Amino acid sequence: MKNIIIASTSTIHGSDYLEYMLDELSTFFKDAKTILFIPYARPSGISHNEYTKKAATAFAEIDKKVVGIHTFKNPIEAIKNAEAIFTGGGNTFVLVNQLYKNNLITTLKETVTNGTPYLGTSAGSNICGLTIKTSNDMPIVYPPSFNTLGFVPFNINPHYLDPNTNSKHMGETRETRIKEFHSYNTPPVIGLREGSWLRVNGDSILLKGKLKARVFEYNKTPYEVESGFQLNHLK
Amino acid sequence: MKNIIIASTSTIHGSDYLEYMLDELSTFFKDAKTILFIPYARPSGISHNEYTKKAATAFAEIDKKVVGIHTFKNPIEAIKNAEAIFTGGGNTFVLVNQLYKNNLITTLKETVTNGTPYLGTSAGSNICGLTIKTSNDMPIVYPPSFNTLGFVPFNINPHYLDPNTNSKHMGETRETRIKEFHSYNTPPVIGLREGSWLRVNGDSILLKGKLKARVFEYNKTPYEVESGFQLNHLK
Repeated sequence: MKNIIIASTSTIHGSDYLEYMLDELSTFFKDAKTILFIPYARPSGISHNEYTKKAATAFAEIDKKVVGIHTFKNPIEAIKNAEAIFTGGGNTFVLVNQLYKNNLITTLKETVTNGTPYLGTSAGSNICGLTIKTSNDMPIVYPPSFNTLGFVPFNINPHYLDPNTNSKHMGETRETRIKEFHSYNTPPVIGLREGSWLRVNGDSILLKGKLKARVFEYNKTPYEVESGFQLNHLK
Repeated sequence: MKNIIIASTSTIHGSDYLEYMLDELSTFFKDAKTILFIPYARPSGISHNEYTKKAATAFAEIDKKVVGIHTFKNPIEAIKNAEAIFTGGGNTFVLVNQLYKNNLITTLKETVTNGTPYLGTSAGSNICGLTIKTSNDMPIVYPPSFNTLGFVPFNINPHYLDPNTNSKHMGETRETRIKEFHSYNTPPVIGLREGSWLRVNGDSILLKGKLKARVFEYNKTPYEVESGFQLNHLK
């Protein structure tokens, strides 16, 4: 049975790394002593070791040990044997490229579908959707595919940002970009604002956190849903 | 001899489509009666016809006819025979995908390198660089490659945006994203602010417009260059 948290961000403004959801994570990871960390997204290009240290510091607060998948000779076995898995944010293209390069997509999909608890933040959440076609990141590497894990039957847009009505910048708003996605693709997209997450439990997909989320369905006007809303009807 | 304008944007705030550079374009396209328009980037998913109409309206102001490449049975021949070419903005991934699908990359590269005047705005400028790995767009389709025309020996970041120091949003700034690009790639990147363009004339690459541009070189602190600056030393 799937047991997943898909978070918009690791960090909210004015708060430490993962701090805003440590209570939730303490419950979520209650049966795990050690968390397997996937640091492949390398925010700002930091090393796998540095990034793992950052995650370890945060999880030490709730007495969890963190080990980086890059320290294992066989990363496929590391995923299969993990008590719990956390994929951190950074660059989604770099993350997906590395997952494909190490042949981890299928194993990760099977392992998490079979019940190993999985936490994703930002890029680590993007890959929980059907594709990374609604990522906000710069395409700094060319991955073998944009297809990802499909833990939920839609796409995620993390760090969802409302239009800045004062801006004189002519670049597209996030909403415009997601509408463009629907010129070429039909799956729904959930715009998750920073501080929101999806709690997947078997077939249930609940919106959690204090904020609303914005739902974009093909050929429909986008709409808001409240925290606590059940999203498993979307497809 | 290359004869190219690489513009950050088609439109600046409070002004009509292409209006801000019509004087420049009037001179640039002085020997062409008809401009071949490549509407493949389809901003907001509008049709090729609608987009071509928009370009035609703007160019009517300076007495130029505009024809869309999608109206030709043989788009390769259309490029070879064009008096001048304009590729408009929209989604860079959609644009590149369509150029590859129609086998136009090589022909476009050869034709423009041999002297057919080329104007690019936004996505149409991104493809003038080595790759689209510094595009700001959402990756809504998966193109066969991120490699592009290489009219200049570096990458373009159009719609370059300075960090908003008041923002509480935790998504990456443009500068952070370009620095991440340099964790995996070495070519320079030119951050072109809206209202700036590069004027390529043979081996000369001049920054034009009223604004400075931001230059990101591998392993160097980013720096600003003034309008009129010669960029052909970069590689």
